[in-house]
Amino acid sequence: MLNFDYQNKTRIIFGRGEQGRVGELIRPHTDSILLHYGGESAKKSGLLDQVTSSLRASGIEYFELGGVKPNPRLALVREGVAMCRGEGIGFILAVGGGSVIDSAKAIAMGVPYNGDVWDFYEKKIGLECALPVAAVLTIPASGSESSVSSVITNEDKGLKLGYNHELLRPVFSVINPECFFTLPAEQMACGVCDMMSHILERYFTKTTRTDLIDGLCESVLRTVMRSARVLLREPGNYDSWAELGYAGTLAHNNLLGVGRAQDWACHGMEHELSAIYDVPHGAGLAVLTPSWMRYVYRENLPMFVQFAVNVMGVDGSLRDFEAVASEGIDRLEAFFAELGLPVTMRGLGIGEDKLELMAKRAAGPDSHRKTTLGAIKKLGWEDVLNIYRLAR
Amino acid sequence: MLNFDYQNKTRIIFGRGEQGRVGELIRPHTDSILLHYGGESAKKSGLLDQVTSSLRASGIEYFELGGVKPNPRLALVREGVAMCRGEGIGFILAVGGGSVIDSAKAIAMGVPYNGDVWDFYEKKIGLECALPVAAVLTIPASGSESSVSSVITNEDKGLKLGYNHELLRPVFSVINPECFFTLPAEQMACGVCDMMSHILERYFTKTTRTDLIDGLCESVLRTVMRSARVLLREPGNYDSWAELGYAGTLAHNNLLGVGRAQDWACHGMEHELSAIYDVPHGAGLAVLTPSWMRYVYRENLPMFVQFAVNVMGVDGSLRDFEAVASEGIDRLEAFFAELGLPVTMRGLGIGEDKLELMAKRAAGPDSHRKTTLGAIKKLGWEDVLNIYRLAR
Repeated sequence: MLNFDYQNKTRIIFGRGEQGRVGELIRPHTDSILLHYGGESAKKSGLLDQVTSSLRASGIEYFELGGVKPNPRLALVREGVAMCRGEGIGFILAVGGGSVIDSAKAIAMGVPYNGDVWDFYEKKIGLECALPVAAVLTIPASGSESSVSSVITNEDKGLKLGYNHELLRPVFSVINPECFFTLPAEQMACGVCDMMSHILERYFTKTTRTDLIDGLCESVLRTVMRSARVLLREPGNYDSWAELGYAGTLAHNNLLGVGRAQDWACHGMEHELSAIYDVPHGAGLAVLTPSWMRYVYRENLPMFVQFAVNVMGVDGSLRDFEAVASEGIDRLEAFFAELGLPVTMRGLGIGEDKLELMAKRAAGPDSHRKTTLGAIKKLGWEDVLNIYRLAR
Repeated sequence: MLNFDYQNKTRIIFGRGEQGRVGELIRPHTDSILLHYGGESAKKSGLLDQVTSSLRASGIEYFELGGVKPNPRLALVREGVAMCRGEGIGFILAVGGGSVIDSAKAIAMGVPYNGDVWDFYEKKIGLECALPVAAVLTIPASGSESSVSSVITNEDKGLKLGYNHELLRPVFSVINPECFFTLPAEQMACGVCDMMSHILERYFTKTTRTDLIDGLCESVLRTVMRSARVLLREPGNYDSWAELGYAGTLAHNNLLGVGRAQDWACHGMEHELSAIYDVPHGAGLAVLTPSWMRYVYRENLPMFVQFAVNVMGVDGSLRDFEAVASEGIDRLEAFFAELGLPVTMRGLGIGEDKLELMAKRAAGPDSHRKTTLGAIKKLGWEDVLNIYRLAR
């Protein structure tokens, strides 16, 4: 186990009806907020009405900014920054999934900063202060409701970049599993893949003697898979949504990442896909994760055997570690397919033509990160291209 | 899963050498602290010197109050309160195990309160403010380094009572597993039993559909048992102390308690033992926990079967749930014995004469809690007496 320094300030308010407490929860902070949300679903479901009536009951003025899209755009973030400055708003409430929360975090960074908020994502400057953000979660997936991360797409540059900072953890997040009942099966599947990836990016490591956190990762992964299978049959199962709803938070609040080197190659490779092709993040991860595993597993065979046995239920007594590890990867891929996710680039609608461009943006000296990607195996752009091609 | 509201503000700084950062960590809060500790071991090990030199390097004045004993006493708490008031101290640093941290928390509650600090423990008044507390942990056991709890013994009244409040979570805690190398085997064993009990008090529940947290509990319990067995053979094994060091924190910061009814009967019954006989808390729990389990397991047989199979490795296919559950309990008791802990009242040096007195203090209308104890089964004083007798 490596030394670590961990604090998670986000308060989680979890369960049926809790969105009705939003006003009371915000009142100690402010009496004027930006209410940030996505498209029509939060309106149609009645959730937005419940939130606004709670805000009114607590005497909180709200300025609305809707229209956040999946892979949230910098243009709307800039609009939000201008709105907050114009109206003197000092608190942002996101009602939505990861895209809305990430967009809210970006606005929160931009308001007190003199330059352009994209500077943070390009690592031109470090964050020193940000407005407080809170969230009412509508899709369990990104973990943004309790994470330090925000990922934004700059549509002009065709870039999707993330920024991480402790100041970006929401002050509170409300998670009511009932809000998930109407999610289409595809969004459930993408969310499941995203949260599993958040765990796997931390789980696969060369750090040794990490039993405690390994065990927690494995346990959450098993619960997520079990719950997802129930939801394929019963999309209105409160208990299974509750498991997923909190698992998504635990997957990315870094409880499962302390004391170990983390990898993050799959997220890095996926961001290039969704920056150019605007594919759902979870679907991109479903395609890339098994291919990445096949490309790197020999770098730490015991860890991939452990995954196969403890998470995917492969019989560990086969006396052929290569076969055990491979079977674990195959079963993970089969699970993604079972959820209805694409598991090939073709299934995502991505051809050959831009693979090299994306690989060179993802890793290597000409990439925006200027260096290799990942930790288990440090990937140059040629490696990334190989993985993209493995996933064809 | 039940609705819940969870926030843990404690920052954990974990690993080799981290005690050297104490001064830098406190500096943003204050330049004057109460340095609270126990007996000679923190001095002899050199830890106290490392802490004070870090404090001096950061220009922090410290007033020392040592002498905290296991089952920490109200008299010393009152002394600490008077010292803080006299010197105008607004921050308490505990260097020690759970007793020292609990004592520091009691002082932190007492300083800004007009009356006597024992009022909180007798639930005569609720907490509205407390001084900030930080800790450098020397024994992984109580979880007090990140918990809301403080347990204090009033030696005049022969009472050991706890008080829980979010304001009692330390602002930060330093956990360096190297500090545990010199702990006697008995203290390791008591610590392991205490942290396992903190998990079991949460784990055994009648709340249904709690898979996610069940799995986390089971995983931490297995890791704790595995690490303890390594430490029996290799008391200087850093990695195993690291597992225990963080497991003890996770066991009691309530990560493992959200969304479910918790029990806490064993802690309630044990406090009566150590209030009168001054036995180590962990040893008292080792005696009472298996007897409590035998007394109540029929109230939720599936949960005790789950424990036996998932935690104690009992073969779940025996087709006799009673036998599976009983075997799980027997194995837990055998594990405590393997650690060298007493598993009978006689082994603790407790005879028959005060059992009824303790039972009547623990539960029922004449007890200090005025009502039954526990949740899986609501225990009257007669039940507690039965459990005490089962443990003879």
